[in-house]
Amino acid sequence: MKIGVLTSGGDAPGMNAALRVIAVLGTAQGHEVLGIRRGYEGLLAGDVVTLTPGMVEGIARAGGTMLGSARSKIFPTPEGQAQAKAKIRELGLEGLVVIGGNGSLTGAHLLGQDKPCRIVGIPASIDNDVGYSMMSIGVDTAVNTIVEACDRISDTARAHRRAFVVEVMGRHCGFLAMRAGIAAEADAILYGEDGDKTLDELTERLTGVLRRCFGGNSEKKRCLIVKAEGVEVPTKDIVARLQSFLDAELPGVDCRETVLGHVVRGGNPSALDRLIAQRLGYAAGAALLRGAHDVMVGWDVPATVGQDTGDRRVRMVPIGEALEETKCLLDGTSPVARARITLLEKVEQLLSM
Amino acid sequence: MKIGVLTSGGDAPGMNAALRVIAVLGTAQGHEVLGIRRGYEGLLAGDVVTLTPGMVEGIARAGGTMLGSARSKIFPTPEGQAQAKAKIRELGLEGLVVIGGNGSLTGAHLLGQDKPCRIVGIPASIDNDVGYSMMSIGVDTAVNTIVEACDRISDTARAHRRAFVVEVMGRHCGFLAMRAGIAAEADAILYGEDGDKTLDELTERLTGVLRRCFGGNSEKKRCLIVKAEGVEVPTKDIVARLQSFLDAELPGVDCRETVLGHVVRGGNPSALDRLIAQRLGYAAGAALLRGAHDVMVGWDVPATVGQDTGDRRVRMVPIGEALEETKCLLDGTSPVARARITLLEKVEQLLSM
Amino acid sequence: MKIGVLTSGGDAPGMNAALRVIAVLGTAQGHEVLGIRRGYEGLLAGDVVTLTPGMVEGIARAGGTMLGSARSKIFPTPEGQAQAKAKIRELGLEGLVVIGGNGSLTGAHLLGQDKPCRIVGIPASIDNDVGYSMMSIGVDTAVNTIVEACDRISDTARAHRRAFVVEVMGRHCGFLAMRAGIAAEADAILYGEDGDKTLDELTERLTGVLRRCFGGNSEKKRCLIVKAEGVEVPTKDIVARLQSFLDAELPGVDCRETVLGHVVRGGNPSALDRLIAQRLGYAAGAALLRGAHDVMVGWDVPATVGQDTGDRRVRMVPIGEALEETKCLLDGTSPVARARITLLEKVEQLLSM
Amino acid sequence: MKIGVLTSGGDAPGMNAALRVIAVLGTAQGHEVLGIRRGYEGLLAGDVVTLTPGMVEGIARAGGTMLGSARSKIFPTPEGQAQAKAKIRELGLEGLVVIGGNGSLTGAHLLGQDKPCRIVGIPASIDNDVGYSMMSIGVDTAVNTIVEACDRISDTARAHRRAFVVEVMGRHCGFLAMRAGIAAEADAILYGEDGDKTLDELTERLTGVLRRCFGGNSEKKRCLIVKAEGVEVPTKDIVARLQSFLDAELPGVDCRETVLGHVVRGGNPSALDRLIAQRLGYAAGAALLRGAHDVMVGWDVPATVGQDTGDRRVRMVPIGEALEETKCLLDGTSPVARARITLLEKVEQLLSM
Repeated sequence: MKIGVLTSGGDAPGMNAALRVIAVLGTAQGHEVLGIRRGYEGLLAGDVVTLTPGMVEGIARAGGTMLGSARSKIFPTPEGQAQAKAKIRELGLEGLVVIGGNGSLTGAHLLGQDKPCRIVGIPASIDNDVGYSMMSIGVDTAVNTIVEACDRISDTARAHRRAFVVEVMGRHCGFLAMRAGIAAEADAILYGEDGDKTLDELTERLTGVLRRCFGGNSEKKRCLIVKAEGVEVPTKDIVARLQSFLDAELPGVDCRETVLGHVVRGGNPSALDRLIAQRLGYAAGAALLRGAHDVMVGWDVPATVGQDTGDRRVRMVPIGEALEETKCLLDGTSPVARARITLLEKVEQLLSM
Repeated sequence: MKIGVLTSGGDAPGMNAALRVIAVLGTAQGHEVLGIRRGYEGLLAGDVVTLTPGMVEGIARAGGTMLGSARSKIFPTPEGQAQAKAKIRELGLEGLVVIGGNGSLTGAHLLGQDKPCRIVGIPASIDNDVGYSMMSIGVDTAVNTIVEACDRISDTARAHRRAFVVEVMGRHCGFLAMRAGIAAEADAILYGEDGDKTLDELTERLTGVLRRCFGGNSEKKRCLIVKAEGVEVPTKDIVARLQSFLDAELPGVDCRETVLGHVVRGGNPSALDRLIAQRLGYAAGAALLRGAHDVMVGWDVPATVGQDTGDRRVRMVPIGEALEETKCLLDGTSPVARARITLLEKVEQLLSM
Repeated sequence: MKIGVLTSGGDAPGMNAALRVIAVLGTAQGHEVLGIRRGYEGLLAGDVVTLTPGMVEGIARAGGTMLGSARSKIFPTPEGQAQAKAKIRELGLEGLVVIGGNGSLTGAHLLGQDKPCRIVGIPASIDNDVGYSMMSIGVDTAVNTIVEACDRISDTARAHRRAFVVEVMGRHCGFLAMRAGIAAEADAILYGEDGDKTLDELTERLTGVLRRCFGGNSEKKRCLIVKAEGVEVPTKDIVARLQSFLDAELPGVDCRETVLGHVVRGGNPSALDRLIAQRLGYAAGAALLRGAHDVMVGWDVPATVGQDTGDRRVRMVPIGEALEETKCLLDGTSPVARARITLLEKVEQLLSM
Repeated sequence: MKIGVLTSGGDAPGMNAALRVIAVLGTAQGHEVLGIRRGYEGLLAGDVVTLTPGMVEGIARAGGTMLGSARSKIFPTPEGQAQAKAKIRELGLEGLVVIGGNGSLTGAHLLGQDKPCRIVGIPASIDNDVGYSMMSIGVDTAVNTIVEACDRISDTARAHRRAFVVEVMGRHCGFLAMRAGIAAEADAILYGEDGDKTLDELTERLTGVLRRCFGGNSEKKRCLIVKAEGVEVPTKDIVARLQSFLDAELPGVDCRETVLGHVVRGGNPSALDRLIAQRLGYAAGAALLRGAHDVMVGWDVPATVGQDTGDRRVRMVPIGEALEETKCLLDGTSPVARARITLLEKVEQLLSM
């Protein structure tokens, strides 16, 4: 049997670890595993390479994706879909594993409608915004990278007794900001799920934080504010307002901005990301070989959802259900989302002390 | 109210993060938090310091424990217990948080029998051998440290096409070896839970692994064997046997030994350890203030065990129950243990491909 | 004898290592070492703490500065100078070690004119812009931090076959950009010493680089351009121009911007920075105790300049001479500057291949 | 012109960066660059691959060596030499770059006697034991790795107030121990160049160190002893003696051993190693193309030795002279060696405070 595998959308550390397991598992069971380059773009172009165990040896530790990734504009169109199905036939693919985030999984679900071949998805997205997977591939590494950067920034912030607003990725989901903020001893965490706050509202909250950090007889030496990209007020506007406040009320204290950007996306995957990626990769490969179609394997999925995979922490969920849950997750209505928001509130409590 | 907090037994990265949250939480709610130095030794000696928010600022990122730790021989004796209780009265402690592994929790449970004050435990042990806490503080960092060391060793192993046996901590529990082994793309993982294997049995298994890695037309460039300390056959005996085999059958390939030792115990805690430590610390402090006694807070405890804490992933379990579960965990009879062993078997499957 | 020590200006990883050695050396020889907080600001305020060996134990590995730093506006004024001298008398200081960059050393030189006490400087500046010290404290760490960030960015750049312009600190000196650029396999390095290039000139050069990276049958998967802060054309203008070029000539390739900012300033110092800091600290302390005044200790100073210190790689240079050399270094007229520019040209050669 | 390049002996981080530059430089100037696998073994076997720019893209950051390395027993024999020369003719090599330590350079010098082709050497050895190169490729990374490991060990040592003896690589040269020891705030550094000390002599010295660290009212929380492999007394014997002393005189303090081993050899090269490797690689390639033969390029060679290369910090030295200097370096008679020993003594001074 010929199996294709591709990585699509924003790259995430750990994608290579998942690729490795799929290639090893498939080959060991006598199948041919084709790596499709540059996501759906490469599928449309038939840009493939046979993955041998030697080719994937040692790649679990490498960031990025050895197959390359892309966002395809043509793929979701009727023409793109037809072309993709034709290529699947031409290449003789009987199964396809898609590793990527919500966009990539949406593409997989769409492509799977007529079942041109079996399709299984693996959630990989540093934003951790995929429904029914408590952790996506890449999240743990991204959080560690942010925390390390916050440690560095804290060194210089403490040397000068300064405030810093650090903006991190996460357009629709504040998970990275929340998790990294707690770990890095942030004094405040801003995330979009908190509601669309205005500059005035944010300023009011944050000047309180600054007073607590630098006013009176506080022993604190720095103020760290972690902000998710999804908060609509621009970081530099917030910093300008806070600086005005500081100049007036706490002269001598500076407020600076750092935007972490793409630094957060790369780097050798953490041990946990390599573990999750390999266990999800194994489950996906095994599910595909057993005949699964239009499903995603998720990490720590609620026991009431989807099906057992033999790995206690991995369950198999119809992609459509996962995408529905993604919506609820992002608009805050699912139980998982509510649990996250409970955590947020707990964080707030901790920080407001 | 006066609350004491101590760290005891082997230190684990993240202990400081837990200390920080307890100090911040207690102080914020108007209590005095006393840091007790050098574990139970310091309790017996009344060696304490008041923890202020300024003193714990920024310590979440530091390895080790700012309070020091120790293993006390006197503490578990009747004299030790009497002396500890006298000190608790003398210091005016109404609550005590104990951060440590199974030995420390056993001590906490023993001390708590007459309830000299409320006592709450927090599991911290890089070995991940505490019952009813899927992760203890320090585990994730230790796994990352091992994986990074294996990455380094793999560099030199690949340069020379060599085999390496890497021994890691874990006298009673192979979790570190298993988790790090999977993440590091190990070719074999040896752990005590697999049964007491003889040198002959291990050699037979591992020569098969070596043949697979270096024989025929294998494209593999290194063989990595991760071994838990708990496997009784000495590492150097295994290496000697494998070298003899290689000299006879695969001449030119060397087998080397590395014992990671205490390097694995230190280092800045990973983001996940800082997160777990702070959430467990928060839950422990809050539980103590609400009147809890002789309980431990655990991470990802089965929903059927203990009590809710308000944090979805943290439950409160009687220390005695947790210690019973520890026994089942280490002898392989608890459901959690069986789940781990299932994972082990899955790993074996993956590696044997 | 009472010795004061302060860190001033922008903090640099390794400052703590220098502080440690001065405290240990002074104390061991029977002197009292006063740590002055927040640079010259703290000197004016008499904000000091006696540094004991126990206080400085283990700080060599910590980024930032345990004494805090600041930029003082009053200090360089006649009033500031008078006040500083009064404080020196009041504190009974017979010697002062100033750890900082060109601004801090200028302050030390000014203060030293009437010799209120002996003054010795130590160059610490991540920009490596201090005359007669081939390396300042903090440079090696900053370069490593940038290179690591470029590695991360390269992961995601290669996954998408993208171009990145990475801006790094260095307002007057392109050393960081040059050194990190070479180490990180940059395809182009932009630095102010190259002359004030216009946006058009930069665009012309860089489109050539892009063509070489992504055009024809190039096997390259990413283009990395490292830009020093000192290049006056804003990074986002360059990126906009390059994107227009790519859209027209190499469609599908994106160009992105990352500004590393304060992340580069912090972090645990590298081994080399800890070594340089401790050797410079030792030489400064010893020189001060032997009666030196108005001198700076430099690393790898030309043999024709200053005086031997007993450490083969450390020489003692009058601060005034070092500051003169700084000017020549920054305007490109000193032999050291010319040597650096030769290196730049060599880099260009390498990159243009 | 056809140029061969090989890496030989113990691998060192940075070898790949040197390979990259040689491949890029050679190819850019119209030559064919052949990578020879597994050092001289691969030369004897004619095991080569043409290095294209695409193949070496991004490898500067990878530890180990992409070509593999080996120690050949046959190569130095008359048969081996004849066979190597025959292969050079057969492959049509007009130039050969050898990257390795003293053994590899000795091999290059031997092979070069009849000039089968031009031969240029590049010093790569984590031990830093090559004459006339103040730094070899791999040293800076190895020092950083050791220092990081000592940081980790210090965390756990401080938690328990313990002594640690950390053994590091360096059979003939204590440079790694010395440099890493200073950077890591070691309390004592043991190196073979100090003369063959007996167990009694070492014990006497080290018990003094332990008394200073843990006795009286010392505020120190750990004692760190860094020992070079080249010190003949086994580490475990030293630890046993120190433990006896502690049990008798400072009860409660433990002494432990850690042998870092091969962990020190791997890992992504530091920025400095990537820089040195690329500048040495460039100089070597350029020298070869200009006709140089039987020379080595060295880093920070004394100005009185060898020839200028156009790079201020790189000089070209006849391999024979470098190997003579290696002897003087290792027996402590060369000026460079004396300078290192002066540093050692300075270290001792620092540590004995």
